[in-house]
Amino acid sequence: MINIIKDIQPSNKQVGESVRSYIDTLTKPPGSLGRLEEIAIDLAAMTEERFPVVTPPGVIVFAADHGVVKEGVSAFPQEVTAQMVMNFLRGGAAINVFSRQIGAHFEIIDVGVAEDLNEEGLIRKKVRYGTANFCEQDAMTKDEAEQALSVGYEEAEKMIKKGIKCLILGEMGIGNTTASSAILTVLNEGKIEGLVGQGTGISNDKLQFKQRVIERAIKERKPNRKDPMDILAKVGGLEIAAMAGAMLASAANRIPILVDGFICSTAALIAKELCNNATDYMFVGHRSLEPGHDTAIKLLGKKPILDFGFRLGEGTGAAVAFPILLSATLMTKEMATFSSANISNKS
Amino acid sequence: MINIIKDIQPSNKQVGESVRSYIDTLTKPPGSLGRLEEIAIDLAAMTEERFPVVTPPGVIVFAADHGVVKEGVSAFPQEVTAQMVMNFLRGGAAINVFSRQIGAHFEIIDVGVAEDLNEEGLIRKKVRYGTANFCEQDAMTKDEAEQALSVGYEEAEKMIKKGIKCLILGEMGIGNTTASSAILTVLNEGKIEGLVGQGTGISNDKLQFKQRVIERAIKERKPNRKDPMDILAKVGGLEIAAMAGAMLASAANRIPILVDGFICSTAALIAKELCNNATDYMFVGHRSLEPGHDTAIKLLGKKPILDFGFRLGEGTGAAVAFPILLSATLMTKEMATFSSANISNKS
Repeated sequence: MINIIKDIQPSNKQVGESVRSYIDTLTKPPGSLGRLEEIAIDLAAMTEERFPVVTPPGVIVFAADHGVVKEGVSAFPQEVTAQMVMNFLRGGAAINVFSRQIGAHFEIIDVGVAEDLNEEGLIRKKVRYGTANFCEQDAMTKDEAEQALSVGYEEAEKMIKKGIKCLILGEMGIGNTTASSAILTVLNEGKIEGLVGQGTGISNDKLQFKQRVIERAIKERKPNRKDPMDILAKVGGLEIAAMAGAMLASAANRIPILVDGFICSTAALIAKELCNNATDYMFVGHRSLEPGHDTAIKLLGKKPILDFGFRLGEGTGAAVAFPILLSATLMTKEMATFSSANISNKS
Repeated sequence: MINIIKDIQPSNKQVGESVRSYIDTLTKPPGSLGRLEEIAIDLAAMTEERFPVVTPPGVIVFAADHGVVKEGVSAFPQEVTAQMVMNFLRGGAAINVFSRQIGAHFEIIDVGVAEDLNEEGLIRKKVRYGTANFCEQDAMTKDEAEQALSVGYEEAEKMIKKGIKCLILGEMGIGNTTASSAILTVLNEGKIEGLVGQGTGISNDKLQFKQRVIERAIKERKPNRKDPMDILAKVGGLEIAAMAGAMLASAANRIPILVDGFICSTAALIAKELCNNATDYMFVGHRSLEPGHDTAIKLLGKKPILDFGFRLGEGTGAAVAFPILLSATLMTKEMATFSSANISNKS
């Protein structure tokens, strides 16, 4: 896979600039559709198509558990991961609702839930039964981290072969804001201030405790800032590794990636560390209420599309943002030009 | 019509609060869908329905000309208003593209274009051939302002009878940021600073000139801050009056209104002055790049949904925001509850 990662090319800025010139001929004052024009230009550069198509989108939710919940860092018990997987399979979770709204292909993948799940519809790619408690030992072995990354890569490739034109990644894993804050702290050169949040809703007291748990884990595990697979193995999560892998597959295939909130953006940073060009294929769908998200977005060099105070995960913020990408593609494809519509240009 | 305006009731906050409680039982941490939850609650209060429906939406674009363009305040010549009406009828404008995307009923109404237009599909309700140059005389008579308001009211009622469940208003009128800045300055107690922008793209020099034109008009016309019809007649626009009328019809029928950018928000402020309850039925779809929009939004007491640096008008920012309202309704209607999905709640 390392070779494939090296094959990820930068997006084609030349195609982007040619689309920028074309957009300036459309029947509107130049630049007057602001961000939508920038998105259309980026999509053209990613896909090397002047009139790119983003439908149908694909949504993949990776589920896995986290040993660190034993420390008491989450508002919900660990069993909720498996219960929510069942909810995804029955179509009752928020990401199901928004996936249906946008006509997405939807898949839920068990890459490391702590219990056995054999339901129909579930893609079973369990690497291990949840991570170990990274306060006590490495979350997983480096080999397991690579396996999880490969699961993500392969499942994304499968979905791309089915014809999806935009990839949305989501996750479910009680405890995964703790793992994400740990990863982000390492990538942020050890500066933890402002990177730990309330996750699914812990109290302020618990927030202080959560930060100390992460500080202790980083001090004991000593993840190597320069080695993303080492970071994943020592303080990461199986679903985070899988999302990073899926993003690399998407970038390798020039398929735009709509990144979700805090956890997904942390996975995007791991993908960036593995191959810097991968970020050329990413949009950040929304700005999460999780305080560390701003730092993650900044490290990605992105600007979120929506700012709605979401803090749910599952891919929900990305899915809700998807119609904006669609608007951008339709603008370029369907609008008349000043000359085709016989309209006087600026005086 | 004045009686109907008095009949506009406040939205039903009790239904809103009952939906808030219901949303807290859905399978997600309480509050974790942030703004979307607030939108769902507002929609419930507006419609008095726990599970409101916003589809199909309706888009009405009102077109009219502005005598003040003779002063040289716009980047585009006046003939563009009529040319763009033709573009709307042929489906090549940005608002056509986004209206198709969201499955909207679309209508374009000539409420005061400066030339005769007899194209098929155009709804002809011309009150007069553009406004007068309000630097020289009142833009229109008070009777004409009322006629334009009534056109908007009646056309919105017709569309509501056809079954639309959310109303998006748009406008086309070269020179209408000048009229909007004039109206807003009056409503802002004469303080013009920060309320005049580049419209379709004038230079900085012209911007200073545009501000002086508006100051001169207000000084000479002396619109009465307390009389919205007087403001419309003296420094307003026919399409602005029509949009205000359409919003009042929507509010009277408990149909949510998705307000667009600067000009549309100014019309919303006129509707507010005529009936304060009308704002209960409004969402502001986006934050325009036009600098006065922030003040208009503040006076409306609203928070925009999107912030994309749009400055096109036509209803485009509202139409692009529409899928967000749809997401909010689907969330409430389709998500499972903790008990229906057998999921453990917060520990």
